[in-house]
Amino acid sequence: MNILHGPDARAALTRRFSEISVPESVLERNEQLYGERLTPEQVVERILKDVQQRGDAALLDWTERLDGSRPERLEVGADELAAATVDPELHAALRLAIQRVRDFYQRQPAHGFLEHGEGGALGQLVRPLSRVGIYVPGGLAPLVSTLIHVAVPAQVAGVPEIIVTTPPDRSGQIHPAILVAARELGIRRVFRLGGAQAIAALAYGTGQVPGVDKIAGPGNLFVVIAKRMVFGQVGIESLPGPTETLVLADDAADARFVAADLLAQAEHLGAEPVLVSTSRELLVAVQAELGGQLERLPEPNRSWARDSVDSRMKIVLAESLDEALDLANLYAPEHLCLLTRDPWALLGRVQRAGGVFVGEDSMEALGDYLAGPSHVMPTGGTARFMSPVNVRDFQNIISVVGVNRAELQRIGPAAALLARVEGLEAHARAIESRLD
Amino acid sequence: MNILHGPDARAALTRRFSEISVPESVLERNEQLYGERLTPEQVVERILKDVQQRGDAALLDWTERLDGSRPERLEVGADELAAATVDPELHAALRLAIQRVRDFYQRQPAHGFLEHGEGGALGQLVRPLSRVGIYVPGGLAPLVSTLIHVAVPAQVAGVPEIIVTTPPDRSGQIHPAILVAARELGIRRVFRLGGAQAIAALAYGTGQVPGVDKIAGPGNLFVVIAKRMVFGQVGIESLPGPTETLVLADDAADARFVAADLLAQAEHLGAEPVLVSTSRELLVAVQAELGGQLERLPEPNRSWARDSVDSRMKIVLAESLDEALDLANLYAPEHLCLLTRDPWALLGRVQRAGGVFVGEDSMEALGDYLAGPSHVMPTGGTARFMSPVNVRDFQNIISVVGVNRAELQRIGPAAALLARVEGLEAHARAIESRLD
Repeated sequence: MNILHGPDARAALTRRFSEISVPESVLERNEQLYGERLTPEQVVERILKDVQQRGDAALLDWTERLDGSRPERLEVGADELAAATVDPELHAALRLAIQRVRDFYQRQPAHGFLEHGEGGALGQLVRPLSRVGIYVPGGLAPLVSTLIHVAVPAQVAGVPEIIVTTPPDRSGQIHPAILVAARELGIRRVFRLGGAQAIAALAYGTGQVPGVDKIAGPGNLFVVIAKRMVFGQVGIESLPGPTETLVLADDAADARFVAADLLAQAEHLGAEPVLVSTSRELLVAVQAELGGQLERLPEPNRSWARDSVDSRMKIVLAESLDEALDLANLYAPEHLCLLTRDPWALLGRVQRAGGVFVGEDSMEALGDYLAGPSHVMPTGGTARFMSPVNVRDFQNIISVVGVNRAELQRIGPAAALLARVEGLEAHARAIESRLD
Repeated sequence: MNILHGPDARAALTRRFSEISVPESVLERNEQLYGERLTPEQVVERILKDVQQRGDAALLDWTERLDGSRPERLEVGADELAAATVDPELHAALRLAIQRVRDFYQRQPAHGFLEHGEGGALGQLVRPLSRVGIYVPGGLAPLVSTLIHVAVPAQVAGVPEIIVTTPPDRSGQIHPAILVAARELGIRRVFRLGGAQAIAALAYGTGQVPGVDKIAGPGNLFVVIAKRMVFGQVGIESLPGPTETLVLADDAADARFVAADLLAQAEHLGAEPVLVSTSRELLVAVQAELGGQLERLPEPNRSWARDSVDSRMKIVLAESLDEALDLANLYAPEHLCLLTRDPWALLGRVQRAGGVFVGEDSMEALGDYLAGPSHVMPTGGTARFMSPVNVRDFQNIISVVGVNRAELQRIGPAAALLARVEGLEAHARAIESRLD
């Protein structure tokens, strides 16, 4: 495999946001479905408009067309939710994940403040959002961990009402692990609904599906586009798309672990793993390891991982750990795995990433389930300006201005002056009417 | 004026997000400019595409077309920035505003945490964004306060590089008050650029204008649409549109002050002031006061305020303070002014607003300039899911996972189990490869 370095490495790790490439397979599927090679944006626009106009009837039609089933009721019944079971070991694992994520987010500082002083009081109230929608991807597998990793921060924030949507399988069912996790979380409303139609339902509200204030959770291309399009009418927490990992390793790293972490990334369909190392020997050893570990993976994971490794993996040789960190900050990966002699020493130089995984015992795959922090992290370079899902995504700040009469006398004239500079005479007068 | 109450009041204060009405005047201006009745979205799409393709040449053309000047250089020169002056009283007022907003935001808790325990360390790094763009509206007046109220939270967050764009006047100039405020803030880069073309330049970068990670600040309809469209390629802090105020008053309120606060809202072109009161007598007294105060306002403020009062003001009679607060929370106003006997007693019931202005000495107009909290607050009902501009808008969280070997042995098996439920075999193996 081609080893990049210097300016080539920088160029390869520089994201170009204006070029959103649509896979040929998506255009082909759209042609089959719609008789035209519609772009994903065009498809999403159609779906949003249809749900806005026809409500539940549109939801049922799109669910049948895209997910292959037409549920009698979109919402999972209370009895079905109560009856769902998984085996005891999995049940315990779900509970452990919920507990660990909850423990973590209870430590996030998110309190308001109200400071009383001579001039009165100023501060911020922090209020939970009223109703939040969580999109849980389905498709290839039930992403029960995603439900936990979005719902818990919302619950810690104090959100009283959570609505979950997740695509049903071809028989119209939702995997029992998702229902059990919902029950463990105390969530009562789960809808059999996926894709852009789910986002439309949560944004606009329909007969069956209540509209929400904010929609959170990752999804495929159509879900991400739909979230972008409804943003402004409802809030969205971020635009999490396909997952990604950059492993940063030095000569002390164990090639087996580096390869294992790259494959844990590569097995996602269409993944683009990145390895940056200061050691050419390690790069060579990892490539040998990748071959062996790939062989031993079962299908379909092996094919997907092999395609990611062969077609999209980037391997970079850095001159120093400093350069390696610069490249990582440039790329702004969702996951940054530090597999170096002294990984904690590098933490201070990490500027842009969704999450940092420090050392070989703290692999990204653990973080996906129950290390603590939410696994929903900014992808596609959006870590330049976005954060992992967290408590503050589900809280609003309300500023509090409680100036007293004496303070007003002191600062009012300057405020009135500024108001007049801005041409706002009635503002100036509203202030001056209370000056002595 | 028609006094609303009961279900009529609820209906009048319920926002319908799906109906974005475009004023006829905008369509008419577009027809003059483009020969077609383009929607604002269509205009913004044209501008974004053009800037993406032609860079600075497009910026100059659009600035000439829409702002009436064609600056030789878009960036304000260092000499011009250094030489700008305003009269000493205004200069002192600008300094006071900067100091008070800075004092306020230094109190906002936004620190990370890193907890070391038996199982290793988990936490969050908090990092400032690298480069932020601030849009300062111009048009009718130099909104110098907006520059202060966006830049200071970004600076408190630690953002090292701030780029300001603001539309030039017809002679290509920027008001000296804006340049002086920029200098006082320590901002070195100011561009003569407004509208959607400024948002495009900040999002994509051009030869003259550097691209940024996030764009903050309020603007007109075109600016808000452009921010929505570039969101995802860059971050945006919120979608602040036309300003709005809801005054909540009881029978103890002074009708003169209520009227003054409503007019401070009404003098914004197209404003929609709202008054909710438990006292019919007060509603009558305020209407009389409005007439007198309107008469005494100078033009053009008087005409604009009169139009807002006559065409769009909503007056609601509530049965109780509880109902009044319910209505305020339903409306989710940018500004909520509490002019009641005991305003502090109501604070606990405020759930949705951008800012609360507590008592008659703490008028919203003061908050616009130098009470402390940023005056850039969520409008149009977006206070349901957005916050005023604040320090955390300019910081990212990076999650830190640093589990140790012993903890991994304990929690690894459950994580591997969950990975297999999700069909992610390589994830399970990446974990198990480190289990003893």
